[in-house]
Amino acid sequence: MDVGKIVHMNGGDGKTSYANNSFFQGKGISLTKHIREEAITSLYSSTLPRSLAIADLGCSCGQNTLSVVSEIIMVVEKLCQQLKYASPEYKIFFNDLSGNDFNNIFKSLDSFKHKLLDEIKTEMSPCYFFGVPGSFYDRVFPDRSLHFVHCSYSLHWLSKVPEGIDNNKGNIYISDTSPSNVVKAYYEQFQRDLSIFLKCRAKELVEGGRIVLTMVGRRNEDPCDVEYCCDDWDFLATALNDMVLQGIIREDQVNTFNIPHYYPSPNEVELEVVNEGSFVINHIELFETESNTSNDESDYDNEYDVAGCIRAVVEPLLVSHFGEAIIEEVFSRYKELLIDQISKERMNSVNVTISLTRKS
Amino acid sequence: MDVGKIVHMNGGDGKTSYANNSFFQGKGISLTKHIREEAITSLYSSTLPRSLAIADLGCSCGQNTLSVVSEIIMVVEKLCQQLKYASPEYKIFFNDLSGNDFNNIFKSLDSFKHKLLDEIKTEMSPCYFFGVPGSFYDRVFPDRSLHFVHCSYSLHWLSKVPEGIDNNKGNIYISDTSPSNVVKAYYEQFQRDLSIFLKCRAKELVEGGRIVLTMVGRRNEDPCDVEYCCDDWDFLATALNDMVLQGIIREDQVNTFNIPHYYPSPNEVELEVVNEGSFVINHIELFETESNTSNDESDYDNEYDVAGCIRAVVEPLLVSHFGEAIIEEVFSRYKELLIDQISKERMNSVNVTISLTRKS
Repeated sequence: MDVGKIVHMNGGDGKTSYANNSFFQGKGISLTKHIREEAITSLYSSTLPRSLAIADLGCSCGQNTLSVVSEIIMVVEKLCQQLKYASPEYKIFFNDLSGNDFNNIFKSLDSFKHKLLDEIKTEMSPCYFFGVPGSFYDRVFPDRSLHFVHCSYSLHWLSKVPEGIDNNKGNIYISDTSPSNVVKAYYEQFQRDLSIFLKCRAKELVEGGRIVLTMVGRRNEDPCDVEYCCDDWDFLATALNDMVLQGIIREDQVNTFNIPHYYPSPNEVELEVVNEGSFVINHIELFETESNTSNDESDYDNEYDVAGCIRAVVEPLLVSHFGEAIIEEVFSRYKELLIDQISKERMNSVNVTISLTRKS
Repeated sequence: MDVGKIVHMNGGDGKTSYANNSFFQGKGISLTKHIREEAITSLYSSTLPRSLAIADLGCSCGQNTLSVVSEIIMVVEKLCQQLKYASPEYKIFFNDLSGNDFNNIFKSLDSFKHKLLDEIKTEMSPCYFFGVPGSFYDRVFPDRSLHFVHCSYSLHWLSKVPEGIDNNKGNIYISDTSPSNVVKAYYEQFQRDLSIFLKCRAKELVEGGRIVLTMVGRRNEDPCDVEYCCDDWDFLATALNDMVLQGIIREDQVNTFNIPHYYPSPNEVELEVVNEGSFVINHIELFETESNTSNDESDYDNEYDVAGCIRAVVEPLLVSHFGEAIIEEVFSRYKELLIDQISKERMNSVNVTISLTRKS
């Protein structure tokens, strides 16, 4: 599977689009605002660049993409007013894999700029926008061309499905029935990927440049200790396995399908940053987001659509492996399993945020 | 009409897409290769930048977009081999209005890079690609951030339909029945637009930076002296007026529809560059492209589809003004008129290319 070509959120702005199904990620972005504020304030105050280059890696599209950019610019503009400095020129880079819906971002930039100017009220320097296609597990930007990197809900995507996990039968991610080699292969892929990510960013950032990363993670050190996000994949696996039993899809199709995700513990993230060596850790934080806010099944559609969120993220991957025909049925079954679970217990998701500074 | 939102070539890669209907523009690009080669050779040899920033303004999408980039990189790589210099880092910026199909460009970059590496054979420095949405009649790039600007078959698009041409009834562009104020309004809009274009690029280019512009133009000084490209609009006007007579569309709809194009003479281009003052003219050239290569009507579909080319360029504009419903019929009528004309005479299009250097 060529993850670079297949992995992207559902494009457009329709019912199943990521733009309309990224409420979960939006909550995480909102809860980490103070960490970005600290990072950009510290970066700008200490370096006062005339031109400020900000990159959102794995930006996808929709409201979340632009809200982070708006928030960062507002922080800098307030600082400029306090310090009585001229506003810097902004270079905003939106990066994602080449299958991302960049057209969707670009079409919303005009109204975004108008709204931003309305909010800032004072005169601001020019703001230039760039779309940058490519995997962040490779170089995407020239040497020392960035000041601030934001990467939210993207780094739990691995660069590929780990190799040698053909025996993860009946599962589509690490599950409590996964053999130990599967767990090891997933973890080692995460280590390699995060290390490459950091090496590339170390070259692209100026000295003192900052990174804030947020990813889905886990509380416990044991990767098999099932928490909510793994439940998501367990439900999807159940839906797929039920369809195998009913002869709708073949068993070998499910056996060869694995999600290229890894949900690390804060310690695992910290260990990799320390080992790679280019960055100082300013802050690392684990936080929970409530994935549903109601236990009442009838409220399901009034709450944000959890199944819709998962569909927006994983549909292109499923289509590529199983074909288009089974998609509606898979998600219909998945949603039923989810509603049943929601009626029984609150479903919380664990997230890890880390704030880093490029060493001098 | 908000040209910035409405004007774009037909996206995607389907039958009516610009990507599959830009043979005419491709011929022009091929015929101006020597002018770009001279410009990039002179620029690179005299400045030897470690990092070379190249922008294609009004890039659209498809084969033409990438072939120019590939050609420029090949010229520089050959020069590096001759001069025994290390290959520079490339920053390639694709600019067009926000309605352009940037996704289409981005999806083809991986195979483009592989093909390029195969052709170059030697090791080359990294190549970074950026999509940059926005009108080139405004600032699109930071100060002094570009070395080379290419703009092909885009600058004959005006920033808007000239004002005060309500009396251009029955026409959709300058025609021999257009009142003189219409001709004057079109020319003055062209002057303002080209002047703003040059002022913006003068700020964005480094000193000694180069521009090569190609646009549809005309041979004679009299803008009413009908040449082929105006014929295109006359045929389209005829198709629309016939539909008015048959009650399919309203007369006032055609009366208020005008194409935001201007086809300048070489003298008009030269005059505006001299008046603006930031650039030295190295070379200006008028050349013809054959719009059809056969007089045999039966060969029409074997030749490139002239009507398809016009449709790919102007369909979004027509849809915005007249609605989706009439499109197939308009182009069916237009194609008939065109085939009739093709059977009678060869249809040549006049083009103007100018090569400029940013003054120190």
